[in-house]
Amino acid sequence: MLEDKNIPKTPVATLGEFELIKTITKEFKINEKSTQVGIGDDAAVIQHGKEDTLVSTDLLIEGVHFDLSYMPLKHLGYKAVMVNLSDIYAMNGIATQITFSLAFSNRFPLEAIEELYAGIYLACENYKVDLVGGDTTSSTTGLMLSLTAIGKAPKKEITQRSGAKEGNLVVVTGDLGGAYMGLQVLEREKAVFQVNPQSQPDLSEYSYCIERQLKPEARTDIKALLNELDVKPTSMIDISDGLSSEILHISKASKLGCQIYEDKIPIDPEVGKTCEEFKINNTTAALNGGEDYELLFTIEQNDFEKVKGHPHLSVIGHMTDQASGYNMVTGLGQQIELTAQGWNGIKSEE
Amino acid sequence: MLEDKNIPKTPVATLGEFELIKTITKEFKINEKSTQVGIGDDAAVIQHGKEDTLVSTDLLIEGVHFDLSYMPLKHLGYKAVMVNLSDIYAMNGIATQITFSLAFSNRFPLEAIEELYAGIYLACENYKVDLVGGDTTSSTTGLMLSLTAIGKAPKKEITQRSGAKEGNLVVVTGDLGGAYMGLQVLEREKAVFQVNPQSQPDLSEYSYCIERQLKPEARTDIKALLNELDVKPTSMIDISDGLSSEILHISKASKLGCQIYEDKIPIDPEVGKTCEEFKINNTTAALNGGEDYELLFTIEQNDFEKVKGHPHLSVIGHMTDQASGYNMVTGLGQQIELTAQGWNGIKSEE
Repeated sequence: MLEDKNIPKTPVATLGEFELIKTITKEFKINEKSTQVGIGDDAAVIQHGKEDTLVSTDLLIEGVHFDLSYMPLKHLGYKAVMVNLSDIYAMNGIATQITFSLAFSNRFPLEAIEELYAGIYLACENYKVDLVGGDTTSSTTGLMLSLTAIGKAPKKEITQRSGAKEGNLVVVTGDLGGAYMGLQVLEREKAVFQVNPQSQPDLSEYSYCIERQLKPEARTDIKALLNELDVKPTSMIDISDGLSSEILHISKASKLGCQIYEDKIPIDPEVGKTCEEFKINNTTAALNGGEDYELLFTIEQNDFEKVKGHPHLSVIGHMTDQASGYNMVTGLGQQIELTAQGWNGIKSEE
Repeated sequence: MLEDKNIPKTPVATLGEFELIKTITKEFKINEKSTQVGIGDDAAVIQHGKEDTLVSTDLLIEGVHFDLSYMPLKHLGYKAVMVNLSDIYAMNGIATQITFSLAFSNRFPLEAIEELYAGIYLACENYKVDLVGGDTTSSTTGLMLSLTAIGKAPKKEITQRSGAKEGNLVVVTGDLGGAYMGLQVLEREKAVFQVNPQSQPDLSEYSYCIERQLKPEARTDIKALLNELDVKPTSMIDISDGLSSEILHISKASKLGCQIYEDKIPIDPEVGKTCEEFKINNTTAALNGGEDYELLFTIEQNDFEKVKGHPHLSVIGHMTDQASGYNMVTGLGQQIELTAQGWNGIKSEE
């Protein structure tokens, strides 16, 4: 998993910008019929007939959002696209295009940049989106990625954070806390490796957690699933910063309170076991961990029977009036207040 | 022009991300009727009825694209928007929205970030575009900006780089080389200031050049002007990297050659005078200087009378067959080959 030092290393400076762009984008095809003009002009041209256009953007910085000592570049490219598409899915939209810009220092040879693009390419193929533009520049230090996703949806299907109503049920897809525990495992292995570079750790018992951290998948399937179940979500958000932070966003945008139940929060058994080993409360991992890229949404109470027991969906609580605040009932029956985990803050200049 | 050291400095870390976003975006209004949902959800919602959607993106890195020792942050914000809108205008489109993301280290207090946003705000007001989203994060070093512009245009009005035909005339807006000479003046003053911080330079004789560098304006007016003149450009690009590089882009995309005339290249008198002082050939400044954000386009020969003598438009040459290559006839009647100025290359990690 750690970087292979024996791959060829072509200094990018020998290519020039246009040759570089040609080299790294030659595999990309246009799949999406709304893409009229892709890479290679001042702007991409996208046609969105009667549907609304969705736009979302993310910035990923080395040393802040990712650590290349355990994040292979191909995975980083893939994950960067997932992070971005997840925002379009969180509007109940269909992602159609992305732009991808990067800045990188001379520490990165062409082969490294190609690995990064291989991940972008795979994500575009798997999620049926077109890469339609970007910008490539040098940086004085490290790697920075900037992505913008474009999507579409009929106006009546778009789901904002502000649409929840009192009494609505709170539903989460998949399970939570895995990406955070994967990070703990990788950080620990990095520390071991720094002490003993010959160590060959067996990480197979953490494979789910590590995959959640290194190769997350955005929930492109949920829109179709909800259509199939005939459920229209009233509000929706993706879980990038942890369940607690996200449910507060929905509550505040909808001017409501919320109540969730600790024992309803879906945790994978491997995540639970890893939490025990690391002496981390698994609810804390789910509430504050982030990076799971699951969707959190609200539905009308009448739709309960339609989602009940579905393997991809967990009803974890309901929306209350604003005065009741933001609460979780613990496994022991105590009510505690939910707070957004603090922002990581501004990094010191090195 | 150099940074005022007496402004208040609120550490951004005391605010948290959401308070920061609230503080810096509170002035932004929605002006553009296609903006259905702006800042504050997972994605913006933009409606583009029967017109095509245009998307363009740029990445600006401290130490690569800008130097804060002479670029005030408000100007930087303004210029970043211009750089981005210019790409939409270069498609003969109308810019409607932008997203703006930034990463910054703890060297930047809240007031600095507010200054940056004041420039973004002014640009949005002046150019009637809406800020509809972005991402804010910490960086380990310096300031990075990423912008995406969204625009629209009826399909038949969109002008790509590839549309030029043999015999078409080559037209440039405004004048060239000013931004590059402004940079030379500012670099010289920076060097003087480093030796003698008490120096109070009189830069009034370079005011046009400095304004072209620090506060460029994108050519939002050209689309309407060409409509008024009843001229439909066949291809178009904006001049961000210098005339030489841009005309090569049009030529290669259109599978043609080109011939331009040195004495037709529009140079402002102040730019010419500054070139003399710096012993820089003014044609070199125009061909290779870049950052002028003028538009370069091709028109049919029949349209010559319509543009002839217009104060904003200069016919500088014509498109030839591909085998004839990319040429400039100098003031002395010699024919020289146009080459794209090399890419700045990849910066060394510090």
